Amino acid sequence: MLKNLVSIKDLHKDKILLILMQADYFSKGYRWQPDNQTFIANLFFEPSTRTKSSFEMAERKLGLEVIPFEAGSSSVLKGETLYDTVRTLESLGVDAVVIRHEEDEYYRHLIGKVNIPVINAGDGCGQHPTQSLLDLFTIQQEFGSFEGLKIGIVGDIRHSRVARSDTEALRKLGANVFYSGPKEWFDQDFLYSGEFAAIDDLIPEVDVLMLLRIQHERHNEHTTFSTEEYHELYGLTVEREKRMKPGSIIMHPAPVNRGVEIDDRLVECRRSRIFKQMENGVYVRMAVLKEVLEGRMANEAADQKWQYSL
Amino acid sequence: MLKNLVSIKDLHKDKILLILMQADYFSKGYRWQPDNQTFIANLFFEPSTRTKSSFEMAERKLGLEVIPFEAGSSSVLKGETLYDTVRTLESLGVDAVVIRHEEDEYYRHLIGKVNIPVINAGDGCGQHPTQSLLDLFTIQQEFGSFEGLKIGIVGDIRHSRVARSDTEALRKLGANVFYSGPKEWFDQDFLYSGEFAAIDDLIPEVDVLMLLRIQHERHNEHTTFSTEEYHELYGLTVEREKRMKPGSIIMHPAPVNRGVEIDDRLVECRRSRIFKQMENGVYVRMAVLKEVLEGRMANEAADQKWQYSL
Amino acid sequence: MLKNLVSIKDLHKDKILLILMQADYFSKGYRWQPDNQTFIANLFFEPSTRTKSSFEMAERKLGLEVIPFEAGSSSVLKGETLYDTVRTLESLGVDAVVIRHEEDEYYRHLIGKVNIPVINAGDGCGQHPTQSLLDLFTIQQEFGSFEGLKIGIVGDIRHSRVARSDTEALRKLGANVFYSGPKEWFDQDFLYSGEFAAIDDLIPEVDVLMLLRIQHERHNEHTTFSTEEYHELYGLTVEREKRMKPGSIIMHPAPVNRGVEIDDRLVECRRSRIFKQMENGVYVRMAVLKEVLEGRMANEAADQKWQYSL
Repeated sequence: MLKNLVSIKDLHKDKILLILMQADYFSKGYRWQPDNQTFIANLFFEPSTRTKSSFEMAERKLGLEVIPFEAGSSSVLKGETLYDTVRTLESLGVDAVVIRHEEDEYYRHLIGKVNIPVINAGDGCGQHPTQSLLDLFTIQQEFGSFEGLKIGIVGDIRHSRVARSDTEALRKLGANVFYSGPKEWFDQDFLYSGEFAAIDDLIPEVDVLMLLRIQHERHNEHTTFSTEEYHELYGLTVEREKRMKPGSIIMHPAPVNRGVEIDDRLVECRRSRIFKQMENGVYVRMAVLKEVLEGRMANEAADQKWQYSL
Repeated sequence: MLKNLVSIKDLHKDKILLILMQADYFSKGYRWQPDNQTFIANLFFEPSTRTKSSFEMAERKLGLEVIPFEAGSSSVLKGETLYDTVRTLESLGVDAVVIRHEEDEYYRHLIGKVNIPVINAGDGCGQHPTQSLLDLFTIQQEFGSFEGLKIGIVGDIRHSRVARSDTEALRKLGANVFYSGPKEWFDQDFLYSGEFAAIDDLIPEVDVLMLLRIQHERHNEHTTFSTEEYHELYGLTVEREKRMKPGSIIMHPAPVNRGVEIDDRLVECRRSRIFKQMENGVYVRMAVLKEVLEGRMANEAADQKWQYSL
Repeated sequence: MLKNLVSIKDLHKDKILLILMQADYFSKGYRWQPDNQTFIANLFFEPSTRTKSSFEMAERKLGLEVIPFEAGSSSVLKGETLYDTVRTLESLGVDAVVIRHEEDEYYRHLIGKVNIPVINAGDGCGQHPTQSLLDLFTIQQEFGSFEGLKIGIVGDIRHSRVARSDTEALRKLGANVFYSGPKEWFDQDFLYSGEFAAIDDLIPEVDVLMLLRIQHERHNEHTTFSTEEYHELYGLTVEREKRMKPGSIIMHPAPVNRGVEIDDRLVECRRSRIFKQMENGVYVRMAVLKEVLEGRMANEAADQKWQYSL
């Protein structure tokens, strides 16, 4: 059971492994649905196909009622705070909310203040815990265990929610994390034990090559190279793929900039788990939703016990 | 049974009380669902979180199929009239429509012309009957009856759908309505028996203090005071709340401008029923939808009888 | 069974008649639902009320789970290709996609490349096969057979998906197609056997008068007449309607520009099947979805057989 899921930091290693185990069950056709009609709302204040649709699929597979919420036509336009929006949904009878928001740690306005679980689907440059969990699940599917695995993360480390969340989780589970990409995008304050390496040194060493998306929307101003140059200097070219370790895999959180982070011809190559990651995202989100809804049901039962004992 | 719900004016006192009784049943867990798959569409031509989500929750709890309708990506952009849009939905098999539209009495283009029920979720500066019903239900929950209650409505009386709808309903049920707020926002043509009073005279007298939202979107041009001045002159300050009558309650249709109509610290105070109103909105809308769908079923049965008798 | 539906050209005459027969069953209350929870996504990159809502109704009536997709808030904004979007949805577990897109033959990027069926809901100036099928169904309902029927299509022939799709289908089924409207909107390269005729010559001859919508959004630049002039020169005026053949009907794909293509008073006249067409659209789309989903199920069963036979 889980009260909320806002950051991978909050999750003990055992809890992570439990979620991955449940995701594995769901991937094999295991079914779980709450006993009563259960309502959920997905509040996406930033554009998203993948994550939003993935949550929607997970929710429908669990038999949940998904209440539509369009940030663009909501009272947020009238200046309503996020707290008031979520309290409103809680008052209407919504049982849990999934939120993506551009503000770092937006969830501080909610946790301990609203009475329904919050699942973080991405906060500013902060966390994206279900993305981490699906990455972990994909790696576990491939290698069984994390102990001693070498993971290379390449790209805009500093601004990436994925780099941040994944690093914390992978280290917790015993993997070694290395970074590459433009040096100016690697933050010295990014205080993890992982080392920075040149892409060509990294390529033959890692079990998992995790490419990050170049987020044009985030830093047009301080890029000093074209997309072609990026591909040549830091991207996964056809030549580099040939030098990868036997049995190693390629991952990317998507959407992919084809021909930039990775050569167009490699997106669906034998090593690529990019579309597998998307499939796995649904199972992982089912597992998280189950944990959170079971936590809520236990919580409500506890509340009731308390009321009756007066 | 109800054919449409466009204005509180059309509802006899007994009908209002019947709807409130059914809302009360729903609030206590009573269930009602139509026998056959039933389709509904929510047409919101103005932004809304609360009302739209509240209808959506009510509809899902009744087991209805909610057909998505996005005004922003619809044929309305191609210049289609509201009548043609609703007739289209009727032709497609939609059983009822909920509409919010910026045009006063937009429903005149529909009533008697389309064959499916119309529920008004707000028309221009006109009516917002389900908001009235939820306000009434909240008051009834608190005080049991309306006879002789003193209700103070404070704010932009002239432009408020809530003030208009609530006044008609409350007077019908025997309550006394008083108004306060900026005098220039109180319309002399607002022809109700309610008196206008200064906020500080009203505060100790009323059983219900109903604060209206300042609608910045409606009259930026003729406001001559800042939000701080509004709060000081007409808002519910911490000091004013202390002078309220024992047992009296605070209401607000929300979204609240915190620190303007009401002090931030009072939004969830002991007297406040603001989030309770939202919860009640779902029950009231379930009751209205039930009435309207039962009306439609009776109607269709009548149509069939008539056809067979030829 | 049908693998995809992208163009009416691909459909054999017998297949068309089979779909119409199934639409007829659905119109009479016949029910069909897939055995397992089945997911569908409607990707509309151009605005639409009618077609999108019609598919949504059809999908709900078949018990499908409709995964919301808003082009305006999707990763398409981040430059994702249509192929990657559809492959993503496939990876997430979506079983079929319905697509409207402004690019002619957008489906060439998908067919044979993704593993889920694609139903074309309109491509650029290309095809709109379910619109054709609903037109055919409406004509069949009226006249029983197509052999020797005279169909007049009036308006912007060159840019019309409807004219293109309908012509191909109608000729396949033995009807004769005639065209009218502004001569400059009739493309000589529109290589069908149908003849061009003046509207007043056409009116007394045809069994079906099919009016096309003037698409202001498509060719403001080369229109040299006002809407009033269009109505006078090429529209269905009250006078022209009086000269129509006994038993003949009026059709229009809608949304109608009232007073332009057709006099306001004729939109719901005795001859008009305009709203009937919309109703029929739901039945036809149910039939197409059934064919495509049965095709997919057979396909998956075949895949499994192949796997087991290794």
